[in-house]
Amino acid sequence: MEKVKVIIMGLGAMGGGMADMLLKKQGVEIVGVVGRGKMLGTSMYDHISTPRGDREDVIVGAMEDVITEKAADVVLLCTDSFTRKAFDKIKFIVEKKINVISSAEEMAYPMAQEPELAKEIDRLAKENGVSVLGTGINPGLIMDLLVILMTGCCEEVHSILSRRVNSLSPFGPAVMEEQGIGITVEEFNKGVQEGTLAGHVGFHESIRMISDAIGWKLSAPITQSMEPIVTDVDRKSPYGFAKAGNVAGCAMKGFGYVDGELKIEMDHPQQIEPEQVGVQTGDYVIINGVPNINMVNSPEVPGGIGTIAMCVNMIPQIINARPGLHTMIDLPVPRAIMGDFRDLISEEAKIVK
Amino acid sequence: MEKVKVIIMGLGAMGGGMADMLLKKQGVEIVGVVGRGKMLGTSMYDHISTPRGDREDVIVGAMEDVITEKAADVVLLCTDSFTRKAFDKIKFIVEKKINVISSAEEMAYPMAQEPELAKEIDRLAKENGVSVLGTGINPGLIMDLLVILMTGCCEEVHSILSRRVNSLSPFGPAVMEEQGIGITVEEFNKGVQEGTLAGHVGFHESIRMISDAIGWKLSAPITQSMEPIVTDVDRKSPYGFAKAGNVAGCAMKGFGYVDGELKIEMDHPQQIEPEQVGVQTGDYVIINGVPNINMVNSPEVPGGIGTIAMCVNMIPQIINARPGLHTMIDLPVPRAIMGDFRDLISEEAKIVK
Repeated sequence: MEKVKVIIMGLGAMGGGMADMLLKKQGVEIVGVVGRGKMLGTSMYDHISTPRGDREDVIVGAMEDVITEKAADVVLLCTDSFTRKAFDKIKFIVEKKINVISSAEEMAYPMAQEPELAKEIDRLAKENGVSVLGTGINPGLIMDLLVILMTGCCEEVHSILSRRVNSLSPFGPAVMEEQGIGITVEEFNKGVQEGTLAGHVGFHESIRMISDAIGWKLSAPITQSMEPIVTDVDRKSPYGFAKAGNVAGCAMKGFGYVDGELKIEMDHPQQIEPEQVGVQTGDYVIINGVPNINMVNSPEVPGGIGTIAMCVNMIPQIINARPGLHTMIDLPVPRAIMGDFRDLISEEAKIVK
Repeated sequence: MEKVKVIIMGLGAMGGGMADMLLKKQGVEIVGVVGRGKMLGTSMYDHISTPRGDREDVIVGAMEDVITEKAADVVLLCTDSFTRKAFDKIKFIVEKKINVISSAEEMAYPMAQEPELAKEIDRLAKENGVSVLGTGINPGLIMDLLVILMTGCCEEVHSILSRRVNSLSPFGPAVMEEQGIGITVEEFNKGVQEGTLAGHVGFHESIRMISDAIGWKLSAPITQSMEPIVTDVDRKSPYGFAKAGNVAGCAMKGFGYVDGELKIEMDHPQQIEPEQVGVQTGDYVIINGVPNINMVNSPEVPGGIGTIAMCVNMIPQIINARPGLHTMIDLPVPRAIMGDFRDLISEEAKIVK
């Protein structure tokens, strides 16, 4: 069988990390990279950690030049957070008869906030005989799929608390700005009011993924809250700095109600240098049910590596899937790929023969 | 849509618990129960916790009388631990064109120890257009599927330790005997040598499920060890008693090697009244990889409820699956069913229309 052929669209921290990961794996190769502006015409190896060595070069190109009909088995689309922004790119790729895995948070469960676009993506994918999936560490695994899996050993579920306490220290300037690191409480509150602080994108997707999976019908719109984590001491991370009294993080919560009762709660405080103030990071799954579940993974799965791994590791599942829009709850579980990618692909599902 | 029709074969602790669970759920009904001996002709309600109330009665019958062609959408087969013992029953059910979920530990991954029978089950299932799955709490979820899921956010996996420290106190006389509770160390060691102590069945299945899922080829046969847990104090559980100096539990380990290196270790000490000696029970997933995973669910998911829930909760997945033998790694993740079973079944996959 031909190696599994991958095109990466967007060579930022996520797309670049996926390239590095793929270069260590067997039976898979990067056949194209889509970029923009000054990146066009440069080598992929100028933008990632892995040295080129004696590998064939991969030159960054424009979407129209790189993504041609059946040019690859899958495109890893790493450019957006929102379905609406990713839609035209997904449409373009699908019409070239190539499968898509998107790291856009909303794409993890696009029916939550963009039901019309989700239907249209499903229709386009089926029409072109390919599959589309959104995934990542969160949404995609920690605050939703892992929770759903653990309800699998429950006779009854009364309520769910999904908590992710994580460090933002490894992230770069863009995340520092999105989360309000270093600004004053006043500036933070203004940002919340004006909707300019992004915070975490994904509660709507995680809550709907859980409620749909276990068969709860939400009785009210999903709500969320956003509070500053004010630091008592100066905190400094590679790309962030928060003076004592200012904002060192952003604590978000999300709420899903069934018959007027709070059934699904998301609790996601993110901050720089949590260990400096004795905060233990971790991923928590707390299910009030029969039986109760009281699970913690500590420290938390790092967001960057986790998203990179989830997107790459789901490649076989999305190639093998029936045509259409998929989510993590209708595909076989993600898993690390320590062998040859080709061993996991069914012959008839392969696009590049 | 007609309700999802279920036949339960074997009305012991597991089958009976599944009946109780199903009676609380919507869109599903028990249309038959298969039993033997003195149970024949009695009411199902004589053997389970749920009172009959004004429900229609279900009379325990012989296999040939209850399991007729397309009499149900699925049979929950709760009679055996070993594939070889369950095989004739699975063959009988499948030839009546009904899906099967088996709680037999070896059936969780029958290709591990019975590759020929696994092939034959797959062939028979395909020939008859139905599906077969083995599942339970362990093997089936805690020491394998959960581990596999967590490797999904890993770029690399170096080694895996899967540990389940659980209490045997809720279990009855059969489990006390299988695990050697209350016997002397001498008797225990004799039982190990002569192969009369069952201990935990499932390491071969869990290790092969993990290694196949992530693409490790085992380089040596799977090995396991079995040691007595000797108690310093008298321990007493509802069905077990161990005098100080005697056996209060059974500590099993399993080992999977890749290229001569220990890559997958299973550690599963089971005992009565662990809290009496300060042992904290729990389910642990420890992955040495990129990133590391360090997860614990404490206390452990109870084995009985967990197995009951897993078998019932996988009913939609096995009805919807393509014909053939399936395992937990090729189906969508298990989840609690808090809504109507029919909402989860695809019309064309339903057997009893």
